[in-house]
Amino acid sequence: MSQNIFDDPVFFEGYYQLRQGLNYKDLFEQPAMRRLLPDVAGKRVLDIGCGYGHNCLEFAQKGAQRVLGIDLSEKMLAVARGESTHPNIEYRRMDMADLSQLNPGYDLIYSSLAFHYAADFGALAADIVRLLNPGGQLLYSQEHPIVTASIDCKGCYNRDEQGRAISYTFSDYARSGRRVGTWFVDGVVKYHRPMGEILTTLARAGLVIDEVVEPTPEDWAIRKKPALAQEFIKPSFLIVHAHKT
Amino acid sequence: MSQNIFDDPVFFEGYYQLRQGLNYKDLFEQPAMRRLLPDVAGKRVLDIGCGYGHNCLEFAQKGAQRVLGIDLSEKMLAVARGESTHPNIEYRRMDMADLSQLNPGYDLIYSSLAFHYAADFGALAADIVRLLNPGGQLLYSQEHPIVTASIDCKGCYNRDEQGRAISYTFSDYARSGRRVGTWFVDGVVKYHRPMGEILTTLARAGLVIDEVVEPTPEDWAIRKKPALAQEFIKPSFLIVHAHKT
Repeated sequence: MSQNIFDDPVFFEGYYQLRQGLNYKDLFEQPAMRRLLPDVAGKRVLDIGCGYGHNCLEFAQKGAQRVLGIDLSEKMLAVARGESTHPNIEYRRMDMADLSQLNPGYDLIYSSLAFHYAADFGALAADIVRLLNPGGQLLYSQEHPIVTASIDCKGCYNRDEQGRAISYTFSDYARSGRRVGTWFVDGVVKYHRPMGEILTTLARAGLVIDEVVEPTPEDWAIRKKPALAQEFIKPSFLIVHAHKT
Repeated sequence: MSQNIFDDPVFFEGYYQLRQGLNYKDLFEQPAMRRLLPDVAGKRVLDIGCGYGHNCLEFAQKGAQRVLGIDLSEKMLAVARGESTHPNIEYRRMDMADLSQLNPGYDLIYSSLAFHYAADFGALAADIVRLLNPGGQLLYSQEHPIVTASIDCKGCYNRDEQGRAISYTFSDYARSGRRVGTWFVDGVVKYHRPMGEILTTLARAGLVIDEVVEPTPEDWAIRKKPALAQEFIKPSFLIVHAHKT
């Protein structure tokens, strides 16, 4: 079973506060994902790691026929059921390692910043291909491999005397596997996979890769949060858009 | 026209000496490319940036029906015509920016460590798709975007007191474009493109991506050249294997 760090009270509170502010996800991961989102009207959508359900609600409001949002965290789903309700949405507590429990028939499988928690990416990719209809699409984001690379989770920006980020240092990129670091709490488990491993796994599972995006913030986002300019030094996120033939 | 640095006498001599020794290309780029090479028997092959023609000779010896090796450098081609002759091989001096001069009909387009010199990667990808037969394959390698990223071409390993590489520092990854650095001589021009840009360009041109490989050296290679162990810190090369439907 995947780690359920989101139900840790300290993590949940820290993450909830982060989500209310000017965070990287809202400022340029979600805008990039929204640009890549296909028309969902009349479609059946699965959102893996749906969190607060904001994306599920958006899909339903855009006319999706049915949206299933799954998440491992009861606390997240409690927020989703309060903030993001719609007659076409169902929320279900489920580990993304257990997708074999679902029946096929999805036109879009969407996931924002969850797949770096998946211990077995090959199994996840195989499940996705099985669940998609022919022509169905996968749109997902994850932390960029440059970010997850270092074994000690201590990849970092280097700064000049004025505190401006000027370069980035990392290590262990080619060592695929588990990474244990700190994010609000200690012991947060992620899985690093090099870019080549990620894309080859998706291709071998039977997906045609349409777009690979390493999003950068637009000017409006940098005006809101000047530190975002450091995204031009190294990427934070990886987005893959693919389809099943 | 692309820069013809290979005909610079100082560069040519430095590069020729490098090629005779234990270099990264021979120790793990070429072994990885060879593992990915499809059966070429009876096939028509185009080698872009064929250099000394060693790969062209290998394709011909493996039964390729016809091999066209192109390179911008007369000095390289003079070596190829001496070292790598075969009745099924033709060498032609040609800039990879001029592929529109060729007729379609190739089953495999191969290129080792040349595409980071291409100023217009979209045009190159479009030419490749036009030249390939349906079902034809592209197998190419280039310098990894992590290596080409830094504007000042000063990406570097960081070393501990014993001189062992422990991490890698780079910058400017998201700034796509021209890079001018030093390799034997000053003023060597390359083009940095982030991974996402490379793969999306190939996909949009009409190629299905089958494998994306960031090769690491095997044990035998590290025994020959211990410094290769640092390849587990950051990748040096990117290999893409794709096909036209």
